[in-house]
Amino acid sequence: MKKKLNIGMIGYGFMARTHSNAYRKVGNFFDLEYTPVLKTVCGLVEEEARAFASRWGYEKVETDWRKVVDDPEIDIIEICVPNNFHAQIAIAAAKAGKMIVCEKPLALNAAEALAMTEAVEAAGVPNLASFNYRRMPAVTLAKQMIDEGRLGKIFHYRANFLQDWTISADVPQGGMATWRLDAKAAGSGVTGDLLAHCIDLALWQNGPITSVNAMTKIFVKERKSVESGRMEPVGIDDACTFFCRFGNGSMGNFEATRYARGHKALFTFEINGEYGSLAWDLHDLQRLAYFNHNDEGITRGWRSIHVTDGDHPYMSKWWVPGLAIGYEHSFVHQAADFIESLATGKPVGATFRDGLETQRVCDAVLKSAESGAWVNL
Amino acid sequence: MKKKLNIGMIGYGFMARTHSNAYRKVGNFFDLEYTPVLKTVCGLVEEEARAFASRWGYEKVETDWRKVVDDPEIDIIEICVPNNFHAQIAIAAAKAGKMIVCEKPLALNAAEALAMTEAVEAAGVPNLASFNYRRMPAVTLAKQMIDEGRLGKIFHYRANFLQDWTISADVPQGGMATWRLDAKAAGSGVTGDLLAHCIDLALWQNGPITSVNAMTKIFVKERKSVESGRMEPVGIDDACTFFCRFGNGSMGNFEATRYARGHKALFTFEINGEYGSLAWDLHDLQRLAYFNHNDEGITRGWRSIHVTDGDHPYMSKWWVPGLAIGYEHSFVHQAADFIESLATGKPVGATFRDGLETQRVCDAVLKSAESGAWVNL
Amino acid sequence: MKKKLNIGMIGYGFMARTHSNAYRKVGNFFDLEYTPVLKTVCGLVEEEARAFASRWGYEKVETDWRKVVDDPEIDIIEICVPNNFHAQIAIAAAKAGKMIVCEKPLALNAAEALAMTEAVEAAGVPNLASFNYRRMPAVTLAKQMIDEGRLGKIFHYRANFLQDWTISADVPQGGMATWRLDAKAAGSGVTGDLLAHCIDLALWQNGPITSVNAMTKIFVKERKSVESGRMEPVGIDDACTFFCRFGNGSMGNFEATRYARGHKALFTFEINGEYGSLAWDLHDLQRLAYFNHNDEGITRGWRSIHVTDGDHPYMSKWWVPGLAIGYEHSFVHQAADFIESLATGKPVGATFRDGLETQRVCDAVLKSAESGAWVNL
Amino acid sequence: MKKKLNIGMIGYGFMARTHSNAYRKVGNFFDLEYTPVLKTVCGLVEEEARAFASRWGYEKVETDWRKVVDDPEIDIIEICVPNNFHAQIAIAAAKAGKMIVCEKPLALNAAEALAMTEAVEAAGVPNLASFNYRRMPAVTLAKQMIDEGRLGKIFHYRANFLQDWTISADVPQGGMATWRLDAKAAGSGVTGDLLAHCIDLALWQNGPITSVNAMTKIFVKERKSVESGRMEPVGIDDACTFFCRFGNGSMGNFEATRYARGHKALFTFEINGEYGSLAWDLHDLQRLAYFNHNDEGITRGWRSIHVTDGDHPYMSKWWVPGLAIGYEHSFVHQAADFIESLATGKPVGATFRDGLETQRVCDAVLKSAESGAWVNL
Repeated sequence: MKKKLNIGMIGYGFMARTHSNAYRKVGNFFDLEYTPVLKTVCGLVEEEARAFASRWGYEKVETDWRKVVDDPEIDIIEICVPNNFHAQIAIAAAKAGKMIVCEKPLALNAAEALAMTEAVEAAGVPNLASFNYRRMPAVTLAKQMIDEGRLGKIFHYRANFLQDWTISADVPQGGMATWRLDAKAAGSGVTGDLLAHCIDLALWQNGPITSVNAMTKIFVKERKSVESGRMEPVGIDDACTFFCRFGNGSMGNFEATRYARGHKALFTFEINGEYGSLAWDLHDLQRLAYFNHNDEGITRGWRSIHVTDGDHPYMSKWWVPGLAIGYEHSFVHQAADFIESLATGKPVGATFRDGLETQRVCDAVLKSAESGAWVNL
Repeated sequence: MKKKLNIGMIGYGFMARTHSNAYRKVGNFFDLEYTPVLKTVCGLVEEEARAFASRWGYEKVETDWRKVVDDPEIDIIEICVPNNFHAQIAIAAAKAGKMIVCEKPLALNAAEALAMTEAVEAAGVPNLASFNYRRMPAVTLAKQMIDEGRLGKIFHYRANFLQDWTISADVPQGGMATWRLDAKAAGSGVTGDLLAHCIDLALWQNGPITSVNAMTKIFVKERKSVESGRMEPVGIDDACTFFCRFGNGSMGNFEATRYARGHKALFTFEINGEYGSLAWDLHDLQRLAYFNHNDEGITRGWRSIHVTDGDHPYMSKWWVPGLAIGYEHSFVHQAADFIESLATGKPVGATFRDGLETQRVCDAVLKSAESGAWVNL
Repeated sequence: MKKKLNIGMIGYGFMARTHSNAYRKVGNFFDLEYTPVLKTVCGLVEEEARAFASRWGYEKVETDWRKVVDDPEIDIIEICVPNNFHAQIAIAAAKAGKMIVCEKPLALNAAEALAMTEAVEAAGVPNLASFNYRRMPAVTLAKQMIDEGRLGKIFHYRANFLQDWTISADVPQGGMATWRLDAKAAGSGVTGDLLAHCIDLALWQNGPITSVNAMTKIFVKERKSVESGRMEPVGIDDACTFFCRFGNGSMGNFEATRYARGHKALFTFEINGEYGSLAWDLHDLQRLAYFNHNDEGITRGWRSIHVTDGDHPYMSKWWVPGLAIGYEHSFVHQAADFIESLATGKPVGATFRDGLETQRVCDAVLKSAESGAWVNL
Repeated sequence: MKKKLNIGMIGYGFMARTHSNAYRKVGNFFDLEYTPVLKTVCGLVEEEARAFASRWGYEKVETDWRKVVDDPEIDIIEICVPNNFHAQIAIAAAKAGKMIVCEKPLALNAAEALAMTEAVEAAGVPNLASFNYRRMPAVTLAKQMIDEGRLGKIFHYRANFLQDWTISADVPQGGMATWRLDAKAAGSGVTGDLLAHCIDLALWQNGPITSVNAMTKIFVKERKSVESGRMEPVGIDDACTFFCRFGNGSMGNFEATRYARGHKALFTFEINGEYGSLAWDLHDLQRLAYFNHNDEGITRGWRSIHVTDGDHPYMSKWWVPGLAIGYEHSFVHQAADFIESLATGKPVGATFRDGLETQRVCDAVLKSAESGAWVNL
């Protein structure tokens, strides 16, 4: 009989859906020692929390997250609320001895992230920052290939995260749907929301960043506040680009924006090394592009690997070769790996400490953008 | 309180997984009047059926499908076993007044398919042939655009289904994993397995086929039988290509094979009409290619529509624009549409009768390949 | 001092431009023993011939092709006129001992092509059927890879040639610009115009075709004749599709049409073999797609070879890696190879005999389409 | 009778070939008032200059460029030699009243470029900086669409120029083949060689750059000098990335490198505006990607425009729709436009003054990279 893992979900928005779905289906596809149980969902508006519970099969509903944190039945606290709540919930949960999975970015800033990291490490509780894209099979395969030395010495790391959903000046800031445009709730704009994903993958795949030089831009200077109903200055960065130095001697080039027409969620990376290159993008998430310079000259070309074979990361758990999985599966894989780590006792990333490193880069990026100068890490 | 729909799953192989997954998650994403319940799974080897039940949460296990068909608690019989069992189970289930969802191809041949169709129509039970690809959002969008007249008069319909998994002569025939290579179990080779999908979409999108001219080929003439352990002649078609006339005056060109290196499950279609063209392939399932001749001349070009926006078919139920879904979701959509049809009383396709039409074309194709002559439908 | 090759160009239309351009520039890029000289251009309307001569630097103008054929100064007769003139000019030129380059298709039908082939062979004159696509670097590379055995046993050969320029019923037939729609001048429609290219490459890359089964279609039944000014029945095939058996045991599937919206000149082929596959299309002519099954499993993928490196066929003569050449260069390469063959005495294809083989397949295709039955070759 | 334009070509390397080819063929395709004549070629090694003259049909050979500049028969001086010779030749030619076409970058630095610009403007001679990519049809079409306001307000301009030919530490610096790696001859590395192209297009398409922030990198610190035969420090930038502010409020992001495996000459740009986006790359030079946000929602997608139709820029001069041209044609178009400008008296860009503006940005980029700070223009 499998041991149960009782989930306490804080939040009932978009990310609460992705995490709930992951826990609900992970056991159908992965063989795990623990069975996650959707125990309690917690949210501010009770009626909405109740609807969410009913849809996903949560057994209990709360409106005060402290009660969930204090509930002895709960094993894992899932933090799927706006960024300005992450630190307080995580620190309380750590003190209560709960395992914690926290949505990214880990915190509003590195100071908060450090406090959270120290809290979970002091408490000795398993912890995970939900940088889900590490677990898209094509991305995991890229990491594996880099670690095997297939690219050799790295020269360039490039990543973009391009969206176009805030071009209209009529999009408001604040509230449930658009808290990501409200500096108080989000901490920053595209830097924490989008570049955090790029940076997490970059640190994971290519090692530490030692210095950054950044530029940010606010294209729409005022938006109506959902809370006040008045036009208020926009405090978040609409777009951010930076270049950087990695510890391994390579150059980095990063950009994120919500003003790139035609791109819904175009998260991309490209890595150029001595022996080859790798490239990926989220719009065609099942493919990894690979150039192998060691291929014979006349037949060299970028390979488009359809990462759906049984020997590709995670794919033996799903269907048959050629049949794609989607965005949601990165969360299923994350849940599987996290649950497996509980059995093995071997932590999996991104840990809170990994999330802290990403936050430090984000802070440096914002600081550089403000000062117009290089910032060392 | 929602009404329950008790599922009786016959089979525990690949397709039983796709259907079980669909029923398990459909209610998390779609608002339906009925809640499917994974009641009973039935399979020949009890231990394996038990493992399947445990993994998916089925309440009961049977090894004799007749018991499931006769069980008054069961509402829907799901037929996810080799083709040679479809007819007998379906006819018995119809007589027992069950709703039926049957994997494709509907039967070994049109005669069987006709008997099945007559049985469900006589019994007046809701029935569905599981041609799941109709419900990939990009495919559904294509259908919608055709029905809106965006292509005008149609000139050409082309479809391929290319695989490469049986090139090695060491792949056996028969047994659980390779029954599709055994003529007794499968009825035909790529015609029933792959072309049936192409034909179903073609009939749905482009109307009736009136005559066909086909060619088949067996590349590996003998394979070891899993049952007998001996080399036996291969009875199924390894590859099949045909051209045809549609009732609307357009020409069709179809091909399927399991000998196309580099293609795992490359199901494609392309439709050329007076005002534009549409193309799709399963390896990049979230995209629909569209050429609109009415676009201004200098800016005309094939559009690559990333079918992930909220106004695209089914997509408002999932994540946010840009985030892809996968193969499995076609079955979730099928389950949702079927369950909704029970509420509305309005049948959804592919019905058994639709499946029969596809079977008739398959039979004509095989007959033409044998005779080397055109066959009228 | 290089020897001169005096060109007698019959025709001043589209193909006369591609050939004149090739001769004019071949010596700038290739080191050849002979220097082609644009000596005489011949066409029906003297004023137009004169304008052509002035533009391209031809020294003389004629309106009667027999004078060019009889001119002792002329070394090579270039036949760039409608198909119904090919045979008489070629046979006369052969008798006059001229080398001959003839645009494709070689003739109106195989009987004519045979007479032409016998004439040049009897006369012992170098001869070339202008199947220029053999000499796109990516296509030449494909041929080289097949000959090296990189694909192993071949299972499938597929080729399409899709256009969309005759969809409007207002396009007339006959005359200078639209003689290809006039059966008297063209012999056939897409079969001789487009499929001839596909068939030539197929025979060259994959060996003889032994039997064919075809279907043709006329979508627009009547068009205004440029000559008569009246609506007249359309005699050419608007679209043609056929499947076939190759001598090496592989299956072929071919299609050509002028009714495929969005495709200007989409000539494609794909070859599937035991160890790999190759694919090419004319719209992205500088790329060859290659799937190598012998690549390591997890990194296998279709390679997009940008055929612009110095070790790719012909490319050392042009620019630097990454910089593409275009359509016209296939004619320059053809001119270079033909001129080189004069020095070596080793004929290069497509010879008239090769063109005859293609014509035989075209005739078989048209005969099969008419009879609705397989036709053996 | 057309007037003649006598060309004096200084240099016989790669660029001398592209320009000679352009002048030789421009009259075959464009109707111009002037006929260019390949009069004199000048280079240091007489034997090589003679071979070049013989190949291209130059009438005379010189080894001292001053003689060409002083030759009263010469109308146009073509400067196709390493960058460190541009200024002296151009200034002398201007004083001699010659028209001048100079390869890019215009000079070693902005000071030189200013002197050259002042010289041609003082002399009142037609002048052109050879930024040939403006005249790739897809790029010209992009410019036209921007000027028509199809993108609306611009938010982002991105350009890359990625190569991989200097990764090996065995590539030397200096000499005829690798002078681009020698700081004395080239002035800078990828900044002047590659980014100059990106910057020229950016200024042309998107207006002035007001400030830049850059980073450069030398990956291989020492290379053997062709001149001295000894290992010497590398003085040029192997890679350079910068972001910038445009006068129109948009952000720019640029990168060039010779260390990006798999990219031979991947020059790309992408422009994101309020109503749409455009993207292009040199490896698939005949295509322009266009996203039109004004397309109806469900059918919106990036269009891949195959820029080969008769109504696309320059394309009516070439073949028929679907048939691509290549790299060399950008020089033919440049020659045509320049010759036409002589007839109309209306200068065409890039003029020397345009080249000076690009040089100023290059200088600012290099200065910023050195100082680590923003540099205003």
